[in-house]
Amino acid sequence: MELYTTPVLNINLKKLVANYRLLQQLSAPAEPAAVVKDDAYGLGAAEIAAALYAAGCRRFFVAHGSEGALIRPHAPDAAIYVLQGIGADSLPFFQSAGLTPVICSPAMFAFWQQHRIEGIRPVIQVETGLNRLGFTIAELENLSAEERADFSYVLSHLSCADEQAHFMNARQLTRFAEIKRRFFPETPATLSASDGVFLGNDFHFDLTRLGAAMYGINTAPYRENQMQNIIELKAPVLQVKPLPKGEFVGYSATFRAPADMRIAIVSIGYGDGLPRSLSNRGKVIFYHHGAPSFCPILGRVSMDNIICDITNLPENAVRPGDFGWLINSDYTVDDVARDAGTIAYELISNLGKNPRFIKEYIR
Amino acid sequence: MELYTTPVLNINLKKLVANYRLLQQLSAPAEPAAVVKDDAYGLGAAEIAAALYAAGCRRFFVAHGSEGALIRPHAPDAAIYVLQGIGADSLPFFQSAGLTPVICSPAMFAFWQQHRIEGIRPVIQVETGLNRLGFTIAELENLSAEERADFSYVLSHLSCADEQAHFMNARQLTRFAEIKRRFFPETPATLSASDGVFLGNDFHFDLTRLGAAMYGINTAPYRENQMQNIIELKAPVLQVKPLPKGEFVGYSATFRAPADMRIAIVSIGYGDGLPRSLSNRGKVIFYHHGAPSFCPILGRVSMDNIICDITNLPENAVRPGDFGWLINSDYTVDDVARDAGTIAYELISNLGKNPRFIKEYIR
Repeated sequence: MELYTTPVLNINLKKLVANYRLLQQLSAPAEPAAVVKDDAYGLGAAEIAAALYAAGCRRFFVAHGSEGALIRPHAPDAAIYVLQGIGADSLPFFQSAGLTPVICSPAMFAFWQQHRIEGIRPVIQVETGLNRLGFTIAELENLSAEERADFSYVLSHLSCADEQAHFMNARQLTRFAEIKRRFFPETPATLSASDGVFLGNDFHFDLTRLGAAMYGINTAPYRENQMQNIIELKAPVLQVKPLPKGEFVGYSATFRAPADMRIAIVSIGYGDGLPRSLSNRGKVIFYHHGAPSFCPILGRVSMDNIICDITNLPENAVRPGDFGWLINSDYTVDDVARDAGTIAYELISNLGKNPRFIKEYIR
Repeated sequence: MELYTTPVLNINLKKLVANYRLLQQLSAPAEPAAVVKDDAYGLGAAEIAAALYAAGCRRFFVAHGSEGALIRPHAPDAAIYVLQGIGADSLPFFQSAGLTPVICSPAMFAFWQQHRIEGIRPVIQVETGLNRLGFTIAELENLSAEERADFSYVLSHLSCADEQAHFMNARQLTRFAEIKRRFFPETPATLSASDGVFLGNDFHFDLTRLGAAMYGINTAPYRENQMQNIIELKAPVLQVKPLPKGEFVGYSATFRAPADMRIAIVSIGYGDGLPRSLSNRGKVIFYHHGAPSFCPILGRVSMDNIICDITNLPENAVRPGDFGWLINSDYTVDDVARDAGTIAYELISNLGKNPRFIKEYIR
C-alpha cells in the first residue's frame, strides 16, 4: 500500500483547445479571443495561454496589467487587452509588455492621453446596461471625433446572456448597436463573452471573448452543456475509520451518526479552495469496480480535510492511499458549484490558486 | 488626479507579533507554536514565519510537506510539524527540510517505519471526538510500548472550542487525558489551537498551537475580541457614474435602482478571493473627512469588480483613483465573514492567494 497526502488538479489542455475550436466555429465569422484573466480562472494563465497560442489564438483578454505581463512570453505577437484598464500602478506592465488597455471612463482616457504607448490603440468600453465599467452616453458625447478614432475596438458586456430569453439581452444589443452607429460606425466591435456566443450571430460583432465555456463551464444552462469538462480534482484518503453511533463529526459537531458508520478522511479542504459551503452537502466520488459511488461529506469542511461517509461501500473498497474525486465528468464544476450554492466561475477560481496543490497538465 | 487598478492587501507583522505574545502569555507555562499552514492562512507563510521566528518562536505547524519546505529557510533551527502527515508524494520534502510528520493512522505509521528520517521523532495524533484524523483506542492498543516511545508529542484537536460551554470541550479533554494516562504518560502533549487557549490552563498541556487568533480572528466569539486586526484590504475606484432610476446592476440583474443613485465601480472581485456571497450584502467603506461611510455592494460580485452605492456621500467625495476599504479595523475579517455567511478562516485563506494582489507587509 502506498500513501499520499496532496490533492491533485488535472487540467486537460487538449479538451481546452477542443472547446476553443467549437466556440470559434459558433462565433464565425467573428474572430475569437481567449479570456485568461484571474490566472485563467485559476487554472494557470501561462500554460493556458501557451496552449491557445499554439492553437492559433492571437488575441487575449486579462483583467490586470500584471496578468498581461505574465502571459506575454507565451503569446509573443498577440494582442493582449487589459479589462480593468490602466493606472499608475499598472503602467510599467503596459510599457514593458506592450499591453492594450480597455478604457472605461473619461478619467482613465485622460490618464492614457498622458501616458500613450507607441503602436498601441486602446479599446473603449461603453455602458449598455450592466452598470459596471464603461462610458455613458453623456461621456461619449464629450469625446471628439478624433479622440473616438483613437480606439481599435468598442466593447461592452452582457449582464444576463446565460438566460436565453432574458429581456436584458435585447435591450443591451439595441443600446450597443445604437452607440456603435452613432459614435463608432467604422470601429470594430465586441459585445459577447462565452455566454453571448450561444445567443446567435447578432451578438457576435467582430470579436467574441471566450472564457468560461472554454474552461468547460455551461454558460448556456438552458440546454445541455456542449463543452467538454477539462478539470479533474482528486485528493488522497489519509485514514479510514469507524464512526460509532452517536459520535459527532467535525467542527461545531454539525453531524451526529444515526447508526454505526464508516468514514474516510480525505486530504483537501477550504484551504485548497474547496468551498466550505459544501459542509454536509458536497460529495466525494470513489470508484469500485468502475462504478461511481457518491459519498456525502459529513460535517464541516475544514481547512485541510473533509470527512465522508463510505458506509455503503464494501469493507476495504476505500483504503488509505486511494484517491477520492471531487470534480470530474461524473461530477462537473457546474454540479459542485450548484451543491456549494455558487457558480463554477468562483469555484475554479479559488481551487486553482493554492501553491500546495499538484497541478498536472494533460497535453 | 492619479489612477490605480490593483487591490492592495496590507498585513501588519507588528500586530501579528503582538497577538502572538498575548497568546503566549495566555498559554503559559505551555510553550506556544505557530500554525502557518495554508500559506499562513493565505497571508504568506515565508513572511509570517520569519517574523515569528524573529520573535522567538521555535515550533511551527504546517499542513503539507511542501509548506514545511517553504518556511524552512526562515526558521532554520525550528521544529516544523506537518499535520497532514507523510506519504510518497511528500517524503522528499521531509528528507530535504527535516520536517516532523504528525502520524494519524497505523497505515501512516507503517509508512514512517519504512522511511524513518534520522533525528526526527514524529508526533502521534489521537481521536478524541472530532472524528477527523487520529488513532482510535483500538489502534493505540496495537502499538507496542517501544513504538509508543517513538513519539515526541501526542496531539489531538478540539471540535467546539470556540463555544466556551459546549459539552464537547469537557468530553474531548477527558478522553485526551485518559489516552495520555494510559498510552503516553511520559510524552509531552498538545490539545489546543487558538480557541482552546481561551478555555483555560486545563486545555493547554505542554504546547499550544496558535493560528487563527494570531491572525486577528476572534476565536472566542462569546466575548469581545482581544486580538488586534492585522489585515487591511483596499481596492481602487475605477469609475463613478450615475445609476438612473429603473436601471439594473450586475450579472443576472439582481439589483434595480428604486431612485436615481450614484455608484462607484471598485476594482476587486471574487477572482481576488472576495466572496461572491457578498453580492447585495457586503459593504465598501469610504472615508470622508475621517468618518467611515459603509456603502452597500449592489448586485452580484463579479470576478474583477464590485459596484457600490455612494448616493449618500457628497458629490466628489469618491472619485476615480480613491481607494475603498473592504477589510480594516472598522470592518474586520469576522464582520466581513459574517456578511458573507462563512468564517474568517475561509475568507482570508482565499483572499491572500491571487498573485495579482499587491501584498504589503508592515514591519
